[in-house]
Amino acid sequence: MPDIDIESWTCPAPLRDSPNVVMGHGGGGALSAELIEHLFLPAFGSAATAGLGDSAVVEIGAARLAFSTDSYVVRPMVFPGGTIGDLAVNGTVNDLAMSGARPLVLSTAFILEEGTPLGDIRHIAEAMGTAALAAGVALVTGDTKVVDSGHGDGVFVNTAGIGVIDDGVDIAPERAAPGDVVIVSGDIGVHGIAVMSCREGLEFGTTVCSDTAPLNGLVAAMIEAGTVHTLRDPTRGGVAATLNEIATAASVGISIVEQALPIPDAVRDACGVLGLDPLFVANEGKLVAFVPEPDADAVLAAMRAHPLGVSAAVIGRCVDAHRGTVVARTGLGARRVVDLPLGEQLPRIC
Amino acid sequence: MPDIDIESWTCPAPLRDSPNVVMGHGGGGALSAELIEHLFLPAFGSAATAGLGDSAVVEIGAARLAFSTDSYVVRPMVFPGGTIGDLAVNGTVNDLAMSGARPLVLSTAFILEEGTPLGDIRHIAEAMGTAALAAGVALVTGDTKVVDSGHGDGVFVNTAGIGVIDDGVDIAPERAAPGDVVIVSGDIGVHGIAVMSCREGLEFGTTVCSDTAPLNGLVAAMIEAGTVHTLRDPTRGGVAATLNEIATAASVGISIVEQALPIPDAVRDACGVLGLDPLFVANEGKLVAFVPEPDADAVLAAMRAHPLGVSAAVIGRCVDAHRGTVVARTGLGARRVVDLPLGEQLPRIC
Repeated sequence: MPDIDIESWTCPAPLRDSPNVVMGHGGGGALSAELIEHLFLPAFGSAATAGLGDSAVVEIGAARLAFSTDSYVVRPMVFPGGTIGDLAVNGTVNDLAMSGARPLVLSTAFILEEGTPLGDIRHIAEAMGTAALAAGVALVTGDTKVVDSGHGDGVFVNTAGIGVIDDGVDIAPERAAPGDVVIVSGDIGVHGIAVMSCREGLEFGTTVCSDTAPLNGLVAAMIEAGTVHTLRDPTRGGVAATLNEIATAASVGISIVEQALPIPDAVRDACGVLGLDPLFVANEGKLVAFVPEPDADAVLAAMRAHPLGVSAAVIGRCVDAHRGTVVARTGLGARRVVDLPLGEQLPRIC
Repeated sequence: MPDIDIESWTCPAPLRDSPNVVMGHGGGGALSAELIEHLFLPAFGSAATAGLGDSAVVEIGAARLAFSTDSYVVRPMVFPGGTIGDLAVNGTVNDLAMSGARPLVLSTAFILEEGTPLGDIRHIAEAMGTAALAAGVALVTGDTKVVDSGHGDGVFVNTAGIGVIDDGVDIAPERAAPGDVVIVSGDIGVHGIAVMSCREGLEFGTTVCSDTAPLNGLVAAMIEAGTVHTLRDPTRGGVAATLNEIATAASVGISIVEQALPIPDAVRDACGVLGLDPLFVANEGKLVAFVPEPDADAVLAAMRAHPLGVSAAVIGRCVDAHRGTVVARTGLGARRVVDLPLGEQLPRIC
């Protein structure tokens, strides 16, 4: 298995010629990025601030605030380990935490389909209340719209959130630097497989439960322990999409070791059956951190001391070579490029 | 036509026994209020702050911020005078402005249906960029999800926004007080009729165009001119729903004079044909203001000097009697209770 010529490798152009929306446009991969770059940013014009990322930093008076939004369309709405409701709370809490912010308040907006049982909505809303309490955020404002039967799909939830970034905290994708240690906070691929196996009625010996969880407490412990350059929660598109986004944003190379990836047996088995690569499967309670080497041991120790980071592991390094590209050393010692996925292998997983 | 006994009148209980979502739950009337009060607030528990109103005031450090969210599902997505895109920008700008805030930044989140032409999305996004520039807000963060064909309806847009409330500004529904003059900023019922006539293929001589517009500039001029107790944009459920919400929030009576309501002939004609009451029809570029009497002339003059307030008119008074109830003096001199609408006469108008 010969090594490919990584330095001269170029990502193949995604499908640009579809005149219509395809599922992959919502997958968090190359098609999603293209929709932002080639449609939304030009259309918004000078009203948009550069990037339109997962979370924006806004300076108001003396305060630095993080501001983020996400809509949730996961099917089924209730899955092993969670519901669309707690997913929506944790997802926005995590987007805020990934910019180093302490999440404070969330908005909740519902698009309900006519005929949806009110009992289902109550169950989802209760999960949101419980998740908000667990994350220490308040639900402060909301909206409800109803669409006629056949023009929605039960419940869609949007959450937006505001967090405050404390003085001295400076965490952003473009801060990743050669030499940084790349750490993942725990087992990968769990949420995607939990939703997918439930949806397809698959069983893999043990039930895989979603890892949906609020990461703000873990992030606070990490920031306390040392300097952190970059944080990101590898949701849609998995660890592969996250690492590619950081490699591009910071213009660095990223080198990972496949055998260092914490992948539970059940996820590995399910991926084998479904023909998926765990690197591309969504997580909802994990983060990837880029930490300068001198601080890596202390940050890793702090992570392992937190309930949501006990399986934290070093998975690679940020390097000076192959900038903009993620490369994995396989179990056999060969190197392969880990692409930004084009779309999403598992549609509607969040 | 005898006067009813207004002091002893009670609002009939809305339909509480539906086990499923009905269109009226999204109408901004009694059913919407009930969904919040009897489902969302109990389910959210202590995670929710009281009210879950259109806009929340959040204190962060020394700053008072307004935070608001709205999802938009209007059909058709393009209508005379606007699109779902500019409606989504103006709607959140206006919710922020109604708490006296200067809107600063918005998030944008899209739920796209597979198969929707990208050209339609570009058109909507361009309208959002233009509207954001006109309102002086930046689009800073976003999200895109895609649902499979038949499980959405083209484009749903959510916007959330943050504004800053300057020192000395204190505007809230519960501040309305007996003696306050009630002012509307211009012609009512325009947006609802524009969308409805377009949807139904109706023509009424002249085309009615939506009044969608950003009201933050008008609000700034009003605040400059005098004290304002309460502001509200009468969207879903129209002026009737807005006045009822304020009557309840402030525990005051509101007395309006039907003949003082600025209603364009085309809206009056269309309402006649469609069997609608203009008081219940949605507006997207109007506000209702409660102003203490000594400041009313100055505030009204400032409104009339602004392009979005040239037709501003005094429509009534806040009174000490019939607290919690809105009463209209009809053209014939009789009095009628103006109820909170149960649902929405015109579904999916925003």
